[in-house]
Order: sequence, then C-alpha cells, then structure tokens
Amino acid sequence: MIRTRAAVAVAPGKPLEIMEVNLEGPKKGEVLVEIKATGLCHTDEFTRSGDDPEGIFPAILGHEGAGVVVEVGEGVTSLEVGDHVIPLYTPECRECEYCLNPKTNLCQAIRSTQGQGLLPDGSTRFSMLDGTPIYHYMGCSTFANHTVVPEIALAKIRKDAPFDKVCYIGCGVTTGIGAVINTAKVEIGSRAIVFGLGGIGLNVIQGLRLAGADQIVGVDLNPGKVEMATQFGMTDFVNPAEVDGDLVAHLVELTKGGADYTFDATGNVQVMRTALEAAHKGWGESIIIGVAPAGAEISTRPFQLVTGRSWRGTAFGGAAGRTDVPKIVDWYMDGKIEIDPMITHKLSLDEINHGFDLMHEGKSIRAVVEF
Amino acid sequence: MIRTRAAVAVAPGKPLEIMEVNLEGPKKGEVLVEIKATGLCHTDEFTRSGDDPEGIFPAILGHEGAGVVVEVGEGVTSLEVGDHVIPLYTPECRECEYCLNPKTNLCQAIRSTQGQGLLPDGSTRFSMLDGTPIYHYMGCSTFANHTVVPEIALAKIRKDAPFDKVCYIGCGVTTGIGAVINTAKVEIGSRAIVFGLGGIGLNVIQGLRLAGADQIVGVDLNPGKVEMATQFGMTDFVNPAEVDGDLVAHLVELTKGGADYTFDATGNVQVMRTALEAAHKGWGESIIIGVAPAGAEISTRPFQLVTGRSWRGTAFGGAAGRTDVPKIVDWYMDGKIEIDPMITHKLSLDEINHGFDLMHEGKSIRAVVEF
Repeated sequence: MIRTRAAVAVAPGKPLEIMEVNLEGPKKGEVLVEIKATGLCHTDEFTRSGDDPEGIFPAILGHEGAGVVVEVGEGVTSLEVGDHVIPLYTPECRECEYCLNPKTNLCQAIRSTQGQGLLPDGSTRFSMLDGTPIYHYMGCSTFANHTVVPEIALAKIRKDAPFDKVCYIGCGVTTGIGAVINTAKVEIGSRAIVFGLGGIGLNVIQGLRLAGADQIVGVDLNPGKVEMATQFGMTDFVNPAEVDGDLVAHLVELTKGGADYTFDATGNVQVMRTALEAAHKGWGESIIIGVAPAGAEISTRPFQLVTGRSWRGTAFGGAAGRTDVPKIVDWYMDGKIEIDPMITHKLSLDEINHGFDLMHEGKSIRAVVEF
Repeated sequence: MIRTRAAVAVAPGKPLEIMEVNLEGPKKGEVLVEIKATGLCHTDEFTRSGDDPEGIFPAILGHEGAGVVVEVGEGVTSLEVGDHVIPLYTPECRECEYCLNPKTNLCQAIRSTQGQGLLPDGSTRFSMLDGTPIYHYMGCSTFANHTVVPEIALAKIRKDAPFDKVCYIGCGVTTGIGAVINTAKVEIGSRAIVFGLGGIGLNVIQGLRLAGADQIVGVDLNPGKVEMATQFGMTDFVNPAEVDGDLVAHLVELTKGGADYTFDATGNVQVMRTALEAAHKGWGESIIIGVAPAGAEISTRPFQLVTGRSWRGTAFGGAAGRTDVPKIVDWYMDGKIEIDPMITHKLSLDEINHGFDLMHEGKSIRAVVEF
C-alpha cells in the first residue's frame, strides 16, 4: 500500500478534489505505474459533469496518460520496472474472440469489471484515507500520480518519448489517426470531410494527410480553428453558418460528388446525418467518432445506404493498443505526425479543474497535467 | 416501327391494360429485343399502385425479363441478332466514373433519362396507336413482347438457358445472391440473419449457402415460408410473433453474440433497425436490400455503430450486370443455385393483373409471364 496524490471526482457535477489517496500494490497480472503526464479529454468531463449515465463516484478519472512501471504483479511477463508505458482504456489481451478477429479492436477480456470501475478481480486498488473505496475509470485513472493497471492494458513505448506529448496518444491522437487508417482505411488520393476541428478532428486531419488524401475539408462553426487545422493538413474550410442553402449540397459540390470518406468528430447526431449524406453516392463511407448524448439517435432515409453509402463507427481509432500505440509513438518521434502544437496548456495537478474551464471556453486543444 | 403487345400502366392505381402499341426500331447504341418471359416484382407493383412518388404514366412496367435480340442499332458491337439477353435496370457502360470504381455497380451513364422514363436520346420508343408516347420503366419495360434497350443495359447470356427461369436473374436472384457475394462479401463459416423470406430473401439464403455460411437464420411472420426457405439453406427460423421479449436479444443469443451479417429484405424501417442491432458487436454488418415507403427513415443510437456495427445497402446486389449476370446464369445451369422452385406461377400476358393479386395474397414467390 502506498499513498499518492490524485484528483478525485467525489460526486457528479462537482469539481475534482485534489487529495492524498491510498493505492494498493499490483495483484496478479497487474502493474503499478507512476503517471508522469495526462491529458484532459471531453470524455472525462462528460463523466465529471454527471451527464454520463454510467458514471460511478467517487472515482479517479483520466484515461490519456503516460508513465513509468514501478512494480509488476505476479505473472506479469511483458513489462518490467522502468519500462515506459501508456495505459489503454481498450486493452489488448490477444486471446479473446475479439482480439483474434482482425475486424475489431474491442477486446472484451476485462470489459465487465472495467465498466463497473473495478479491476479484473472485482475490487478497487484506490481508497480514501478513511478506507472508502475509490473507483477506477476506463481502466486507467490517470488523474493520479500512481495507478494500477492490468498488464494487457499497457502499451510499452520507447524511453526517449516525452511523456507530456505522447500521453495524448493514449486517446485523442490514436482515435483520430486510427479512424482514418484502421477504420476507414483511406486510400491515397481520397477526398474527405471532417466535422469538428477539436482535439479529435485535428488528428483525423493529420491522419488524412498521412494517408495521402487529396482533399481534406474541415467543417466547424468556429473560424478560430482554421489556422491550426490548416497547419495539420486541411485544404478547405466550411463554416456552416456562412453557407447559403443546404450544407449537404454545398459539401457535395465542393468535393465533386461527395466525399469518399466523412468523419464526425462532434458527437452531434444532426451533424452525423449531414456527414453521411455528404458522402459520395456509390462508395462514400461515413465514420462516427464522436460520443452522442445519452438517448440521442441518428436517422436518415435508407435510400442513402441503398445507393451505396456506408455508415460506420470507430472506438479508439480501431487500434489494437499494445500493438499500434508504440507505432504511433514512433511516428511522432520520427516527425511523421505532430503533437506539440495541440498541447496548448500545461497544468499542475492542483490546477486540473482550470483545464475543464479551458475546455468549455474553447481555449484549449489539449491541456496536459504534468506530475 | 413495329406493333407489339404490351401491358400498359395507364394511370396510378389502375390495373394494367393489355393492348397493341407502336414500337420504333432501335436508334444508335440501342437494341430491339423480343421478350420471351418476364417476372413480376414488388417494385413493379410499387409503381403500378401509385405509391412510387417517382412513377410516370402511361408506362410499360417490368424489369425482370429475358429474350432474344431482333435488331441492333447503329454502332452496336457487343450484340448481334439472335443473341439471348437479359435487360439490366442497372446498366454497365464500363466507362463512367462509377463503372471504373470497383466499389460500386451504380453506372450513371444513362441515369438521368432512365429516371424520366426515356431512352438516352430523351425520347420514348413506345407509343399508343393514337401516337401518345408511352414511357419506359427502369430502362427495361419487359411487360411488352418487344422492347428497345440500350446496348449497355443488356447482358448476353448462353442460348441453352430457359427464358422462363433466368428472367428472374434480371432482378430478384441477382439482388439476393449479389447482396451476399458482392456487397457483404460473406466469408465461409459466417453466421447470418435474413429478414423477410420472399423472393429476395430466399435468394439471400441461397447466396449464403453458396458462400458457405455456417448458420442462416430466417425471420418472417409467415410460417408458410419455412419449407421453401429450408430447402434453400435456412438453418434456423424465427417467427417474431412467437418470441417472448426482445427480438434483438433473442437473435443475438441464437447467433452466439449477434450475426456476422444481417440482411433486410422487407423494406420495413423498424425491421432494418432490428437487423442492424442483431449484428455482432465489433464487426457485424447489416445490409439493407428492401425499398422503404417514401419518406420513411431508419434510426438507431450511434453507439451501435461506434461499437463496431456497419450499416450498408445494396442495389441490384452490387452486380455489374453485363459482367456478373452471365455468370449467375451459368451457376443456375450448373446447378450451383436453384430457381425453378421459386417460379411458382406461370401466366400469359392477358393474366398479368392476376399476378399482382397472387403477390398481395402471399401465394406466389415469383409469377412469370411467358409470351
């Protein structure tokens, strides 16, 4: 049992509380990780705010971290003390029906306990100093200086990669780039439209650039996003507020018949429909990345699909984390992708609630907490 | 100009009228075909009934025929007098952007005129004896003893194939089998669910058998469909009226986690949703084949897609007609697929309206008119 500092979500809608917490050591198949840096993602805020119907409290949120292995539990063979790792909210056991099917990355090995805020043995490692259990979050809980994570949910990365940048590969970077590369499998020369130019959308854009897309249209209501999106590869910008008439018709014309691939990175179900209908007749694919509000539904006329459009989705960019995340770290270190300009704010753990303010104000792409 | 006998849809909702009509000879790039047999499809009835908002009258319906080339127009090079052919409502010009893209079969070469009931030069070849033009239908108009069709909309087939059977390959057989083979690309060992065991659904089932599916679940409210569907390869039957509780949960359990592929052959948007949600998490694909009522919309929670299901559609089974239809005729002649049991009724042209009665009464799989 150690003590570590953490930002604890004590109740829905409350600011996180910075406190010392107890952390039990790793059990069989688990690993104790010292978190060096963690990003703040909209999904953390979705749960903190109380909007997430599956939110469990008290919990230590955070799922976009990077750190160092401090101790390994019994039976852990793929990691040792001193290894640099990125925790994975989508694990990769390499043994379940899902891991053995190349069509999906949705490893189910520890899903039921993870969804309940527990480690695979059905208990928590975190507790308040008075002994009250604190739940895990997305199997990661990176808003703590130390955390315990199953071995199958840790990607081992190179030691020269900076924690305060590659932590972002734990969610946003992989989700955006992976949606292009793993889910859509975009071909060189494609035309694409990206709805929403936030932390995910920008990574979709650089994924499209990496994949050799010819036209990369960005759609956002905020013209302040243009400069950064252009830097990442956007070739055309459309502000729906400035389009006279039908947005779909405008986008279809701009892409000469519709885009080969469209991506929703907004979570808005109306935007998801627009994204589908702006895909090219005959072969256009639309990929949903964004998380919609509880209960919201997408809809369209089936004719849109019968005439050749496909409607799909992606989680964690279709990435098998232990296999793919180290590669994406290499791409960053080799200069194939950019992360630095997206890390717009650095905070201490004590300042973490300010990070959510920046998110709401639209001032940050990514705020990162460094320990 | 010749005279021929035809069943004419004179106005929405009226029975077809059998009459002599004028037919001009083939112009440049066109072919005069003597129709030997034609199936009656729900799509013909959709238009005849007046439910089709794009229906044009007076017209000669019918799009599931087979016949013999009687005369070729200027510049026709791929067909000659005496060739046996199946008219294609989805042509294959092999030159347009769509034909050159292997992801689609939706040749656009003559789409705009075809949609207006005209041949590519913008005029009709059919007229009443008083000179009133009669519109073409789906580019085929097989409810006439003779018709004129563009060369790119005719599949040349072997001469030993019986017209009264292979005419069905002009729509239903290709749509159903093609949805499996071309659109879904079902792999050996897959589990599949087919909603609707009519003329399309049965062909989906035999397509699945041909593709080596391990489990082929048929879903229909009519238990009278079981015998024929079993003959074509169905392994499990589900009557939604006899399921206690949630149909999706029942189907997911029956297919051990959801089907790898599901097919809607009903045109009912609620069924389309069930079909999507009964597809396997992580990789299940749902293919819409049925034509929904005008204005009807499909809907679901985007979570269904984000967790790995795909929603797609198919038209004419994704088949490139001139290339694929002759192959399917070969499969029939070689005994790889069955057609004979599905041709449940033979009619003369004078009896054609009775064929629509049989359709409404659920008594026929396919009624075929022989000239």
